[in-house]
Amino acid sequence: MSQAPISRQILANAIRILSADAVQQAQSGHPGAPMGMADIAEVLWNDFLIHNPANPSWHNRDRFVMSNGHGSMLVYSLLHLSGYDLTIDDLRSFRQLHSKTPGHPEYAYTPGVETTTGPLGQGVANAVGMAIAEKVLAKQFNRPKHTIVDHKTYVLMGDGCLMEGISHEACSLAGTLGLKNLIAFWDDNGISIDGEVEGWFTDDTAKRFESYGWHVIIDIDGHDSAAIHQAIKAAQASNKPTLICCRTVIGKGSPNKQGQESCHGAPLGTDEIALVREQLGWPYPAFEIPADIKKAWDAKNKGQRVEQDWNERFASYQQSFPELAAEYLRRMEGLLPDSWTDTADAFIESTICKAESLASRKASLNSLEYYSNVLPELLGGSADLAGSNYTITSHSKAITVDDASGNYLHFGVREFGMSAILNGISLHDGFKTFGATFLVFSDYARNAIRMSALMKLPVTYVFTHDSIGLGEDGPTHQPVEHTSSLRLIPNLSVWRPCDTLESAIAWRLAIESTEQPFSLIFSRQSLPFQSRSEQQVANIAKGAYVLVDCEAKPDLILIATGSEVALAVESAQKLQQEGIAVRVVSMPSQDFFDAQTQDYRDSVLPPSVTKRIAIEAGVTSSWYRYVGLNGALVGMDCFGESAPAEALFPLFGFSVDNVVNQAKALLS
Amino acid sequence: MSQAPISRQILANAIRILSADAVQQAQSGHPGAPMGMADIAEVLWNDFLIHNPANPSWHNRDRFVMSNGHGSMLVYSLLHLSGYDLTIDDLRSFRQLHSKTPGHPEYAYTPGVETTTGPLGQGVANAVGMAIAEKVLAKQFNRPKHTIVDHKTYVLMGDGCLMEGISHEACSLAGTLGLKNLIAFWDDNGISIDGEVEGWFTDDTAKRFESYGWHVIIDIDGHDSAAIHQAIKAAQASNKPTLICCRTVIGKGSPNKQGQESCHGAPLGTDEIALVREQLGWPYPAFEIPADIKKAWDAKNKGQRVEQDWNERFASYQQSFPELAAEYLRRMEGLLPDSWTDTADAFIESTICKAESLASRKASLNSLEYYSNVLPELLGGSADLAGSNYTITSHSKAITVDDASGNYLHFGVREFGMSAILNGISLHDGFKTFGATFLVFSDYARNAIRMSALMKLPVTYVFTHDSIGLGEDGPTHQPVEHTSSLRLIPNLSVWRPCDTLESAIAWRLAIESTEQPFSLIFSRQSLPFQSRSEQQVANIAKGAYVLVDCEAKPDLILIATGSEVALAVESAQKLQQEGIAVRVVSMPSQDFFDAQTQDYRDSVLPPSVTKRIAIEAGVTSSWYRYVGLNGALVGMDCFGESAPAEALFPLFGFSVDNVVNQAKALLS
Repeated sequence: MSQAPISRQILANAIRILSADAVQQAQSGHPGAPMGMADIAEVLWNDFLIHNPANPSWHNRDRFVMSNGHGSMLVYSLLHLSGYDLTIDDLRSFRQLHSKTPGHPEYAYTPGVETTTGPLGQGVANAVGMAIAEKVLAKQFNRPKHTIVDHKTYVLMGDGCLMEGISHEACSLAGTLGLKNLIAFWDDNGISIDGEVEGWFTDDTAKRFESYGWHVIIDIDGHDSAAIHQAIKAAQASNKPTLICCRTVIGKGSPNKQGQESCHGAPLGTDEIALVREQLGWPYPAFEIPADIKKAWDAKNKGQRVEQDWNERFASYQQSFPELAAEYLRRMEGLLPDSWTDTADAFIESTICKAESLASRKASLNSLEYYSNVLPELLGGSADLAGSNYTITSHSKAITVDDASGNYLHFGVREFGMSAILNGISLHDGFKTFGATFLVFSDYARNAIRMSALMKLPVTYVFTHDSIGLGEDGPTHQPVEHTSSLRLIPNLSVWRPCDTLESAIAWRLAIESTEQPFSLIFSRQSLPFQSRSEQQVANIAKGAYVLVDCEAKPDLILIATGSEVALAVESAQKLQQEGIAVRVVSMPSQDFFDAQTQDYRDSVLPPSVTKRIAIEAGVTSSWYRYVGLNGALVGMDCFGESAPAEALFPLFGFSVDNVVNQAKALLS
Repeated sequence: MSQAPISRQILANAIRILSADAVQQAQSGHPGAPMGMADIAEVLWNDFLIHNPANPSWHNRDRFVMSNGHGSMLVYSLLHLSGYDLTIDDLRSFRQLHSKTPGHPEYAYTPGVETTTGPLGQGVANAVGMAIAEKVLAKQFNRPKHTIVDHKTYVLMGDGCLMEGISHEACSLAGTLGLKNLIAFWDDNGISIDGEVEGWFTDDTAKRFESYGWHVIIDIDGHDSAAIHQAIKAAQASNKPTLICCRTVIGKGSPNKQGQESCHGAPLGTDEIALVREQLGWPYPAFEIPADIKKAWDAKNKGQRVEQDWNERFASYQQSFPELAAEYLRRMEGLLPDSWTDTADAFIESTICKAESLASRKASLNSLEYYSNVLPELLGGSADLAGSNYTITSHSKAITVDDASGNYLHFGVREFGMSAILNGISLHDGFKTFGATFLVFSDYARNAIRMSALMKLPVTYVFTHDSIGLGEDGPTHQPVEHTSSLRLIPNLSVWRPCDTLESAIAWRLAIESTEQPFSLIFSRQSLPFQSRSEQQVANIAKGAYVLVDCEAKPDLILIATGSEVALAVESAQKLQQEGIAVRVVSMPSQDFFDAQTQDYRDSVLPPSVTKRIAIEAGVTSSWYRYVGLNGALVGMDCFGESAPAEALFPLFGFSVDNVVNQAKALLS
């Protein structure tokens, strides 16, 4: 006779105990959310989640995101219990250096963690991106009787996520796009860090999500497994994204702390944990899960079966549509098409031949237009600035609620939501994604850009209108500190091209990137084409190179980016006429240049030449690194003004006269 | 016999024509919104707005904010027509250098412009701040039969504002706080820059605002003056904030462009403007408003009367409550109390005597606690991190929907909304305002911080958990680039104090600031107190000073901030033991130091001493300015890790051993 099955209660309690014990062991962490959401997670994972613990990167798995990432022990408990490569010792090392269980879920640290969360509201926006990717990929690859893309995205959210503005941006767009495979759970526990939320968060959240066009399931007792099960069934049947509103008790199981802020972000304490064990009827010591409970949680067999089923479906698809199947695999593995290198080479060659003087935002469009010919994986758009950012090509087709056959996303005026959605699309795999806005509004998106960099996602940000060159819109719209500020984010590559060729190469590098997001920074106004030797062309990809040189050892080096390169070249000509040996260095990317060998860097900026002037229409701070204390800077450490661009550049010192005067002063 | 009164239609058409002509003249700008909202603005300004064109800073005026600031010509038209000091020539100079009519409304450029708008969604958040200020100030100063604070805040919003996440954050909080004097208008024209919004913005906005607890008035024809009038009446009678949903036609009056994106952000063209004149029956040339229409608009007499009424009320109040009246005037004029200097001196003296080693976030709390004794104008809070940011003092009392007698705002998890609300509070006058979050989440608020700096508002930002020193929460919560990144914002003063004394002085400077926002950056972990001479204490306010010196000319200068100052001091001791002459410079504020005389700067960092090491637990970029190309940097140009802080500092090189080794390498 087989034993009675393990009750759901016990399965959920395994999460509660593991979470309480791990936080206690670390003397740091958040037990409240995992203990409060244990029942929801148990039902979701044991009854619904389609995944294979043995293969966390199986393409058609359901995606699971914990947007309230501080509850990371919930995720680690689920991964451990269901059979991922995450041992009990890993759980013991919660929040310790180089463990697989960092304080917040970190993408690529832990098998099964789909995205890095913690900065509130971004996880749900990532989930929206994943659901968009699923919807678009399904349209591109599924064929009658051959459904190979059909998974769900589940996301847990706390009150904090719902207070953050980004949840509005992302969830509003999810409603507009009718992302029916997106199912969100609201952990409605009435508590945030400051205490009971009624003093600062009184939204009727159900009504709010209805206003976005979501299917909303209200009044679920988040500790009633049957009710949770029914709600998920109903969500799966909906043709809209669904929010399941679950009333929960934070820290449930802790007799003295449940329902209170005190269990949110601190260990319960050993005495209280003893009481938890008593209350839950859990006699086992810390980090010991009895075999029968482990077995009941174990999803490895089921996982193998579901992946095997899919593999069979895919084999049949492969037989019927061999090219499509190969293309699907290429896309999911993030490989560029075979024709890519030739295409990129050809475009760069033609850009050199054309030698056009264009606004670099227009050069960006031309790059996107040409590269799009061979990149069906391009999926992106603009935050309601398509006509200004120049992101719509002849290949662009808008994705709508009824038609996912396109490749263009009208994000609306939602810069932060857009950027976190791009992260979700990139995490999903299958696409090369990009998003655009004015450079100044990179501020709105900044933490999501940081998350791209932290997660090493090859997202491309297109930031146009890059300086006072945008003119009349004035200081609110004129980025001054933004290029420099983006340069500070580790692992973000920042490019500010000076002409069509540097733009084409920057875009190429962005597309070829696998572990770095790119910020491509473009001008509103026209920039003259610079002619170059073959070697100079090859050196562009090194981030900086000698664009104009003198025969003798230089008396002076002018370093510039973007729209100021032409100014540097013109100034150099004038100085050379006066007998001064001047070199001009174009430095579209500080970070790529910094990654070159010392030899190369010294060949561009010889240490013996200390008279250097950096010229950039923005704050000067990041240029001391190249000009040192003996150089000079032509920049602006102040806000701009509203006026035509032609009036602004000389006003702030971006004129040949000023550069020449600065040079002479430096050399005198 | 008097003439027939000028019709409302004609009054509104004056706005339309002025806007179309000014944009045409500038060859740049946004005619669509002013033409679409002209009728709403006409009714609001002529029937309801309590203001005095002759005194734009009259304390009890209604506040008017155009959150969709690109429609600036609406504001300029209203200001000109109603009699502010804004001439027709000023309108002719729309968007020209140094005009009073910049591309977007800029605070302090134009009499009557209450806030700088353009970055979408922030204007409505500013308006929420103004309404909070009004509610709290009314509670503090009104007395039975003596109502001296009782004005409304009106705000216009477009679809863009409503798509932005910040509108969610600010409007949700406005609902919770029951800001009945806040009245918002939604310009529901169905158009944004990408075209018809139905492809990317399908919210049921009325329902959304109902979910926030707002009073929502739906289905108003935004061109029906009587309906607008009735709606505003109803809004004024409500005990909640009100959203009036106005269906409008963008660019109304332009026969070929109205209702289309083409009139949003570009001049209509001279031919089309001729047709506008025809359609509106407006025979007058550009920039000529007939005398009778000007007269009908003129609000100077009415303005004088309403201010005179208030002056009389205030005189009576002054008689009954002379001290309160004096205090009100002090507060509204932004003057510190007489006792301030003594209080600040005493606190600094006691901080020196106590010589405590504390986390600087705790030092911040102690400063706030003490200074609060004499500063009833302090009004601020935290974005749901009160207990971590240490912003609640014994003087703090939460402001709630029913009780505005407090001084503490629980902002909820809404960093961006908080910051833009702080700007609104500051703009209103009457308060010294502050807001707090973790330093890493300054990212979320970044553009509002920029707006504080651009508008020269003395807002104080309290950013705690300032480095890898926060430990286990890991890289998502560990700021690495943020201190440097904030330093890039023009006119923002950034302080990272090393102990209780630098913290006390930084807070003092922030409170004494009149034209600069401050970012005060504090540690999670304890920092040792540094002993100093009187002169050294006096030099702290200079942003950087010699904290430890050697007798001879230094071989080496160590420059550090915050938690790394103690590391620098310890390293210097070790190096001095080995016979190396080392100076330690504490540099809590680069920007204050940069503003000192060349002599002072040279006395701290003598040009002849080129061996310099900067030490800061963050990215290195901003330090080349002080160490040049011959120095070294102890910093981290990468993301952190999740682990206890004690494990992280040495891992990333913040150890005496590493500093000593770097020093020796530099000197060898």
